[in-house]
Amino acid sequence: MIIPSIDDMFAAHERIKPHVHKTPVLTSSFLNELTGAELFFKCENFQKAGVFKARGASNAVFSLSDDMLEKGVATHSSGNHALSLSYAAGRRGIPCTVVMPRTAPQAKKDAVKGYGGTIVECEPSTSSREAVFAEVVAETGAEFVHPYNDHRVIAGQGTCSRELIDQVEGLDAVIAPIGGGGMVSGTCLTLSNLAPETKIYAAEPEQADDAARSFKAGYIIADDAPETVADGLKVPLKDLTWHFVSNHVTDILTASEQEIIDAMKLTWKRMKIVMEPSSAVPLATILKNKDTFAGKRVGVIITGGNVDLDLLPWLNS
Amino acid sequence: MIIPSIDDMFAAHERIKPHVHKTPVLTSSFLNELTGAELFFKCENFQKAGVFKARGASNAVFSLSDDMLEKGVATHSSGNHALSLSYAAGRRGIPCTVVMPRTAPQAKKDAVKGYGGTIVECEPSTSSREAVFAEVVAETGAEFVHPYNDHRVIAGQGTCSRELIDQVEGLDAVIAPIGGGGMVSGTCLTLSNLAPETKIYAAEPEQADDAARSFKAGYIIADDAPETVADGLKVPLKDLTWHFVSNHVTDILTASEQEIIDAMKLTWKRMKIVMEPSSAVPLATILKNKDTFAGKRVGVIITGGNVDLDLLPWLNS
Repeated sequence: MIIPSIDDMFAAHERIKPHVHKTPVLTSSFLNELTGAELFFKCENFQKAGVFKARGASNAVFSLSDDMLEKGVATHSSGNHALSLSYAAGRRGIPCTVVMPRTAPQAKKDAVKGYGGTIVECEPSTSSREAVFAEVVAETGAEFVHPYNDHRVIAGQGTCSRELIDQVEGLDAVIAPIGGGGMVSGTCLTLSNLAPETKIYAAEPEQADDAARSFKAGYIIADDAPETVADGLKVPLKDLTWHFVSNHVTDILTASEQEIIDAMKLTWKRMKIVMEPSSAVPLATILKNKDTFAGKRVGVIITGGNVDLDLLPWLNS
Repeated sequence: MIIPSIDDMFAAHERIKPHVHKTPVLTSSFLNELTGAELFFKCENFQKAGVFKARGASNAVFSLSDDMLEKGVATHSSGNHALSLSYAAGRRGIPCTVVMPRTAPQAKKDAVKGYGGTIVECEPSTSSREAVFAEVVAETGAEFVHPYNDHRVIAGQGTCSRELIDQVEGLDAVIAPIGGGGMVSGTCLTLSNLAPETKIYAAEPEQADDAARSFKAGYIIADDAPETVADGLKVPLKDLTWHFVSNHVTDILTASEQEIIDAMKLTWKRMKIVMEPSSAVPLATILKNKDTFAGKRVGVIITGGNVDLDLLPWLNS
């Protein structure tokens, strides 16, 4: 296990700057009044490939050694890391193979292909995904870039919070959704070094609350194939992300499916931004835990905006 | 007819600054590649009340004389001016009555009520709207703030382009949707004085192309109750907006219903912003007239984001 340092994050930031956006921070007086907190939304839905993962993927791809360029990169992903790795590989002009659940949203599959990535499908379970992926790596010899349990990826994700604390002074807390824990780990890496007084919260769907249960138990609990509308958050913690989560996170809060959908629709309606269900989990938990955040300046990471616009969850519920 | 001057626009800007946002300008490398132009999207969908009309309404409300404050303001509107006037009246703490078609989206009616406005319904035609409105003014004695044919409103809308030319240098053109012509007139007021080399285009639905036909004919042609998905663009030009349009607009381009819906969905998907069908008309016309805009730096005014999220047009077509 290689634990990235704050210098790795700084190096990542220099490396990826030409390939990612410094995303804007938006505010909403309506949501501030509703929550009683001062919320600063870091809009990674406006990021390249529509998601923060362009940061970590770009850092991994652009730190590859020259002898690996012909074999390229490969990964397994519920979608957004696939997009992001394809995007970054396309920028560097190297091959990219991704193992993706056959149930992943069509919009994400189309986007991977649009960036030039090659898709190999698996069943929608962690076990199937890992088995199919082993075959792919054996065949291609490609460099494995894990969606989150990778020091290069976490150093890349950490650049998001570095921008955020430059853009907004005196944050009392930052909250981000947690699936495998890549964004949360990057946030921990950066804030524990550069803003140690800022508390870090993670937000998770009740129906995929393995990180919250791990956090309480003190060791990693992994579920196979949980079901939630927040499709980016189904994957379990791994050793590297567990290291950051267990050492630096103040609490992991959860929200129900309906609360997530309501928070998502509310954000679209009032802030006029398109974001994924996963990105709505932090606001859903803030609305449930108003006392924790009242009067505080809170950074809220809107992780991505890759939604199938033909399948909006409030139209099916 | 009072024609606002550029000094009226400057005064409006000082007056309304505490009550409106300086909205951001977003870009999309995808849409630049697709169109061959360099597009700069001025995001008035992030404006207060979700629409640029907060500018004009705030200017009218905050320039009211003290003796009118008790009687308040009144207007008729297809929705967005109603929201905006209610918002501005609420900020000043005065009454606001709005005459609205009974067919206006429920989301807009709810929002008017949310800002404290009082709604009186009419039939969805220009003639019914004007008749019902006359009764309302007779009863309340309120100051009429027309949605667009008002010098205070046009001076307010002109502040949008003033920001835009501060935010983006060297624009070859600016394009905005046209209904009654309020935004286009404000754009003409500001650009003809401050950036006379910048061409001004207006974009209109084919199914409500009265402004395009007026432009060709050289006099105002008004349709009663045209039908289009771009529900903010059904109203006709009036003398004051005709003055600006006929003197300063280079051309009025049109797009079909399907082209508008496609451009709307494309923007949501690639730019991750929520915008109204009306706001998609400029991009729809740019995609149809690539030669006109290729290689040019083009400001595109995203006029508003007040959409009924339960009734998205691509899900009904």
